[in-house]
Amino acid sequence: MKIGFIGLGNMGQAIVANVLRAGHQVTVWNRSPGPVAALAALGAVVAKAPAETLQGDAVFSMLANDAALAEVGLTGAVLDKAASGLVHVNMATISTALARQLTEAHRARGLGYVAAPVFGRPDAAAAAKLIVIAAGAEKDVARVQPVLEVIGRRVAVVGQVPEQANLFKIAGNFMLAAAIETLGEAIALVRKGGIDPAIFHEVLTSSLFAAPVYQGYGALIVAQKYEPPGFKLRLGMKDAGLALAAGNELQVPLPLASLVHDHFIEAMVAGLGEKDWAALACVAAAKAGLSPA
Amino acid sequence: MKIGFIGLGNMGQAIVANVLRAGHQVTVWNRSPGPVAALAALGAVVAKAPAETLQGDAVFSMLANDAALAEVGLTGAVLDKAASGLVHVNMATISTALARQLTEAHRARGLGYVAAPVFGRPDAAAAAKLIVIAAGAEKDVARVQPVLEVIGRRVAVVGQVPEQANLFKIAGNFMLAAAIETLGEAIALVRKGGIDPAIFHEVLTSSLFAAPVYQGYGALIVAQKYEPPGFKLRLGMKDAGLALAAGNELQVPLPLASLVHDHFIEAMVAGLGEKDWAALACVAAAKAGLSPA
Amino acid sequence: MKIGFIGLGNMGQAIVANVLRAGHQVTVWNRSPGPVAALAALGAVVAKAPAETLQGDAVFSMLANDAALAEVGLTGAVLDKAASGLVHVNMATISTALARQLTEAHRARGLGYVAAPVFGRPDAAAAAKLIVIAAGAEKDVARVQPVLEVIGRRVAVVGQVPEQANLFKIAGNFMLAAAIETLGEAIALVRKGGIDPAIFHEVLTSSLFAAPVYQGYGALIVAQKYEPPGFKLRLGMKDAGLALAAGNELQVPLPLASLVHDHFIEAMVAGLGEKDWAALACVAAAKAGLSPA
Amino acid sequence: MKIGFIGLGNMGQAIVANVLRAGHQVTVWNRSPGPVAALAALGAVVAKAPAETLQGDAVFSMLANDAALAEVGLTGAVLDKAASGLVHVNMATISTALARQLTEAHRARGLGYVAAPVFGRPDAAAAAKLIVIAAGAEKDVARVQPVLEVIGRRVAVVGQVPEQANLFKIAGNFMLAAAIETLGEAIALVRKGGIDPAIFHEVLTSSLFAAPVYQGYGALIVAQKYEPPGFKLRLGMKDAGLALAAGNELQVPLPLASLVHDHFIEAMVAGLGEKDWAALACVAAAKAGLSPA
Repeated sequence: MKIGFIGLGNMGQAIVANVLRAGHQVTVWNRSPGPVAALAALGAVVAKAPAETLQGDAVFSMLANDAALAEVGLTGAVLDKAASGLVHVNMATISTALARQLTEAHRARGLGYVAAPVFGRPDAAAAAKLIVIAAGAEKDVARVQPVLEVIGRRVAVVGQVPEQANLFKIAGNFMLAAAIETLGEAIALVRKGGIDPAIFHEVLTSSLFAAPVYQGYGALIVAQKYEPPGFKLRLGMKDAGLALAAGNELQVPLPLASLVHDHFIEAMVAGLGEKDWAALACVAAAKAGLSPA
Repeated sequence: MKIGFIGLGNMGQAIVANVLRAGHQVTVWNRSPGPVAALAALGAVVAKAPAETLQGDAVFSMLANDAALAEVGLTGAVLDKAASGLVHVNMATISTALARQLTEAHRARGLGYVAAPVFGRPDAAAAAKLIVIAAGAEKDVARVQPVLEVIGRRVAVVGQVPEQANLFKIAGNFMLAAAIETLGEAIALVRKGGIDPAIFHEVLTSSLFAAPVYQGYGALIVAQKYEPPGFKLRLGMKDAGLALAAGNELQVPLPLASLVHDHFIEAMVAGLGEKDWAALACVAAAKAGLSPA
Repeated sequence: MKIGFIGLGNMGQAIVANVLRAGHQVTVWNRSPGPVAALAALGAVVAKAPAETLQGDAVFSMLANDAALAEVGLTGAVLDKAASGLVHVNMATISTALARQLTEAHRARGLGYVAAPVFGRPDAAAAAKLIVIAAGAEKDVARVQPVLEVIGRRVAVVGQVPEQANLFKIAGNFMLAAAIETLGEAIALVRKGGIDPAIFHEVLTSSLFAAPVYQGYGALIVAQKYEPPGFKLRLGMKDAGLALAAGNELQVPLPLASLVHDHFIEAMVAGLGEKDWAALACVAAAKAGLSPA
Repeated sequence: MKIGFIGLGNMGQAIVANVLRAGHQVTVWNRSPGPVAALAALGAVVAKAPAETLQGDAVFSMLANDAALAEVGLTGAVLDKAASGLVHVNMATISTALARQLTEAHRARGLGYVAAPVFGRPDAAAAAKLIVIAAGAEKDVARVQPVLEVIGRRVAVVGQVPEQANLFKIAGNFMLAAAIETLGEAIALVRKGGIDPAIFHEVLTSSLFAAPVYQGYGALIVAQKYEPPGFKLRLGMKDAGLALAAGNELQVPLPLASLVHDHFIEAMVAGLGEKDWAALACVAAAKAGLSPA
């Protein structure tokens, strides 16, 4: 397949490398030129403007947030220059409201639109072990499926309306934040009761909570090690905000998401925005009068 | 070893059977006579009064709550008749306040006291796969360790102060309740957004949340199947109350435990007290206007 | 003074009538023509387009929300046609983010901008007893002060940055919603305990809580009388959302606002959006299993 | 009337003085002898033991908490020595559970029991301006009414079951704590937005919130003046706990009470337990990164 790719952060770079290795043609574009060279060495064509990436079968984008999509022009102007019938695969974690708007913007221009956010960090992207959550019209999804398969160890098609993939991802990220909050409160409780938190963590995550989430984040919280960040706390806060926005739209009260979001604000105030989002646990520790945690 | 065992509910029966099989002598007592016969057939001696179970090396008790311990006399009178140097192993999930009181009641009489609550349901007890969380004076724990090893696949000694084991168990149960609340809110959100909750559950619990807790409770919530109860909601509410009581004593704010406890009350009001505690998720569904869930 | 006035809902009509009575010239415009005739009879000039209201010393607007301001053109196009040096007095309860944007839009065109939201319902507007919360550059506020004095029994200048008046109003509305939530929970508690809520309300609001808010909303809650609405619940929910948005921007966690907002969603789901916002109390009653209340 | 009075703290002393002035005979007892002399000078008879106060028509008690009642013997032993038909008027803010237990303890001995907690601080007690919330059997209340009238400016009989008066008082105190929390969050929000909190407080409490509660506590919060304490924060926390306990018993979820209670724990951890309970507002300020406040 011939595709374009916009947004070459840690995730984007790893994904493109895998797509190239699988034999697809990729034209790449990035706002800063840094990451481009390495991918060119692997065979990528380097675009001089975003529009050049929209001339193949599909364009993939992996941008940081709503604003970045608008800046690049993927919410309007650049789409006018897209090849007829192109499918845009948006891998960013965005609001369901923007997803709806983008769906319409593509539909109006006769373009396909697939939302395909992923679970997994850069190392999973490099190992092609992402979990891809895709939603869109059946034919659009089918068209880009070969590339999605190369990117992830699992491609879950969760609906025919693109925003559903975003909602799925938002709900999943909410569950992650809730698990961190839970660990933070539980560990603060046992610590203040004089129990070694390492034993608490080890026992629970080798039995009932034997899942990567609890093992990984729990270890960071026990060690009070929030740097370097795997995923920054201020981005986690953004995602909690997306959950609340989705709940608001769909009229689903999410009191736990509200609680988590309020604690994220507390963490921001405490200067933890650039740390790993497991540092949310510092809020629970501080409330209990426990050391920096 | 020669031990006594008080409290032959589903858990107690399964535990005693394993202890007998391992070659220990067990004198049993239960308030209702029903469960006694089967254990007698396996070799247990049947006591006519609770005090008869306190004549060996140790007495184990597995009673429902604080009140049951008092009724049997294990908070006072019956202890006066215990063999010198006996160790009492209390396997119930009780408050840290009662644990402290019991520790003192035993100390004053020259008896040992070990708190040893367990994680696991009756089937795990039958398979000797419980996780035993033990705390108490080193020599007391050492003395009963051979029996504990027979009961569980893991015996974690988490402190020398008995109440620490209760705190550990309470914190673990809080984490379970928080996971159910999290699933309830996340599933309500995706359901109302038109996503099949079964896909949501399957994708997440085969990756980030690949833990028994999420797999098991998530499946019940997706299927809206809360009967028969594995663990009754009203008992889950009691345990959430124990977490709040512990947080209050230790001055650890637990806003998530508060939220969960309030939702348990809502669930009780909705008549769900005798269902499996995964029915806590019905509260989140109802708030969103979703069917019985 | 010669002013324009845009937005002739119940509030706007009452305000304009008072301004006319005080001898000022008023050119009015409204999206629907209905309310215009009565004011013309009192001496108002009827504009054929919004821009005609921007030709005097000042233009006042009292529109429902952010969207209405944009539709009328007060966020851009229409401002280009304003008389040089005109001051726009925006009386709507809008977000601090939009207030910032409007401040800049006016500044860029050499126009003054004053935010002047009010506390008080239509009857207070008719009696010229509103409380006006004003913020803006000193000279702009000074220029429109004579008109503001005619509108309210109190004009409080709370800052020189327009958005501060909006923040003030948002914080005040949050306090109102919190008072309703408080009444809802307290009354549910005493009701379920068999106490006559009317006695509870009467005793407290004739002593510690002898304030209009508690007297008025408490009486509605006790009587379970939420129609006709003085202020619609769905608008109250919007305002709670504005408080959360402001808290988010300023990094001020507002857990009570989060709680209230979640309950507003529950009330929306229960179909109470068009009732008086005191119906928020129905959520607390329902959670306790109490009748419609 | 001939009455006894137990518990001569600031409140008790002021009340007894008024009762003596009204011409009643009062036999007093206090654990520490200090306050007794002044009342003897006003004509009080000084008892040598608590039982001596139970020989007249009624005994009033104003003790700090559940434990104090037990220590004095009013939960059992001392009651056995009471004059036949005596009515005990318990003015303390106690749990509804203890109120029930006391009601039964008196009934079993043929004694009357009236719960009569009060709203008002020592200065109101001295001025005989307390608000007395009374509940009990009609004839018991009627018998002590003459004394209650001397104590308060208002005697509200709210039910025939004593615990209802306690529930009423608990619900009222919850409303006070909720008002403080509300003020704390609202003032933190406007402060961080650069608005003078004194203007905010003055404008709102001279209009919608023109009630003693908001005026008084708001002024303390604006001035950040939490000493000397009018009512200690740790006692406010106890009362929030009583609200949660009552909600738990009656199955009334009180999420706002949960939130307030959690913030009280945070305030305790921050060392504010001996300050005025308006210092609860420091928690909201601290979360927002604002100075001590």
